[in-house]
Amino acid sequence: MDTWLDSLITDTPQQGFELAITLSRRGVKYTQPDPVVLKELRAHYANSADALTAASHVVAVNFQTVAAANNYWRK
Amino acid sequence: MDTWLDSLITDTPQQGFELAITLSRRGVKYTQPDPVVLKELRAHYANSADALTAASHVVAVNFQTVAAANNYWRK
Amino acid sequence: MDTWLDSLITDTPQQGFELAITLSRRGVKYTQPDPVVLKELRAHYANSADALTAASHVVAVNFQTVAAANNYWRK
Amino acid sequence: MDTWLDSLITDTPQQGFELAITLSRRGVKYTQPDPVVLKELRAHYANSADALTAASHVVAVNFQTVAAANNYWRK
Amino acid sequence: MDTWLDSLITDTPQQGFELAITLSRRGVKYTQPDPVVLKELRAHYANSADALTAASHVVAVNFQTVAAANNYWRK
Amino acid sequence: MDTWLDSLITDTPQQGFELAITLSRRGVKYTQPDPVVLKELRAHYANSADALTAASHVVAVNFQTVAAANNYWRK
Repeated sequence: MDTWLDSLITDTPQQGFELAITLSRRGVKYTQPDPVVLKELRAHYANSADALTAASHVVAVNFQTVAAANNYWRK
Repeated sequence: MDTWLDSLITDTPQQGFELAITLSRRGVKYTQPDPVVLKELRAHYANSADALTAASHVVAVNFQTVAAANNYWRK
Repeated sequence: MDTWLDSLITDTPQQGFELAITLSRRGVKYTQPDPVVLKELRAHYANSADALTAASHVVAVNFQTVAAANNYWRK
Repeated sequence: MDTWLDSLITDTPQQGFELAITLSRRGVKYTQPDPVVLKELRAHYANSADALTAASHVVAVNFQTVAAANNYWRK
Repeated sequence: MDTWLDSLITDTPQQGFELAITLSRRGVKYTQPDPVVLKELRAHYANSADALTAASHVVAVNFQTVAAANNYWRK
Repeated sequence: MDTWLDSLITDTPQQGFELAITLSRRGVKYTQPDPVVLKELRAHYANSADALTAASHVVAVNFQTVAAANNYWRK
């Protein structure tokens, strides 16, 4: 696989949150790399409250990691 | 996307808890940005005990992050 | 919403555990504030083993936060 | 409710694990205090692989808390 | 119950991972101690992708605890 | 079982993420070691949005451990 993760350090908390989203999606992509299948599946979970909550849960776990890496962007 | 997260620091634990709720909702919104769909889905999960518990779980994970960022608001 | 969370510090671990329960319930209440609906839903999950385990899981996550805030009530 | 949690400190890791089990069960009992209902529900989840895994998950989360409180019982 | 957990310290990360598996199984065994029932249940979850992922999740949580206890086996 | 985990230390965050994937798969393999069964199960969960999200969740938990072990690859 190509290089997609050089660092966990980001300038702002929001960029850190967006990195957490990337990590969550990559966690899926390593298991299912086919973009056509992924697009079909997205149609499902983007319209299911339970699936969206589960997705937000994974983002929250990854955001813990990114936030700790950045010392919570404390000034 | 617009700027919505400048800092994880809040004045009080309650504001931190409310920020955790914002983070949880944003985790959903990055996957499903359509406000009409989100409103429909909310009608579902706001009346399902399982869905509400799952939502509270995500808030708890994000609150861990916010609380750590604020050193637990210790005096 | 009214002020309901002034501090994560408690005198004893048991009070900390009870605060974790409060946090878990508040995580639900921000999504579903209607007390009538909440009471109906409680009738469901209080009689479902899976729902009770899920509720205990959320309490466990929040208790991690409260326990860390209190330095685990070490003497 | 009576006093049931005085300290998170235990002599051994195994006692800590057993305290984590107590915490997990108390997390259920605060929501469903009726011992008759609890006994019936136990008949269900003690024979469901999914329910037992979910129960073990909650124990694992509480064990993280107890283990940290005890500095992992390092000598 | 017999003594089965004397220490969280292991020589290698792999032994730590295997201890995390032991902890996960013990979390089940405290709820369902009957070896005959456990063997039947294993036949179920060893052939269910969802159940295996849930089992791996519990191992991951326990591995966090064991890895922290060992300071991540840093040299 | 053979030796498969010598260290949690990796050169880059991406290698750490890939180690987290290995840990997640090993967590499955200790319960279901048969490669034929595992291949069949993969056909299922690689096409289920819920199963992929659950898999990504486990990776996220293991990535927390690996990232902490590496001090988040801070320079």
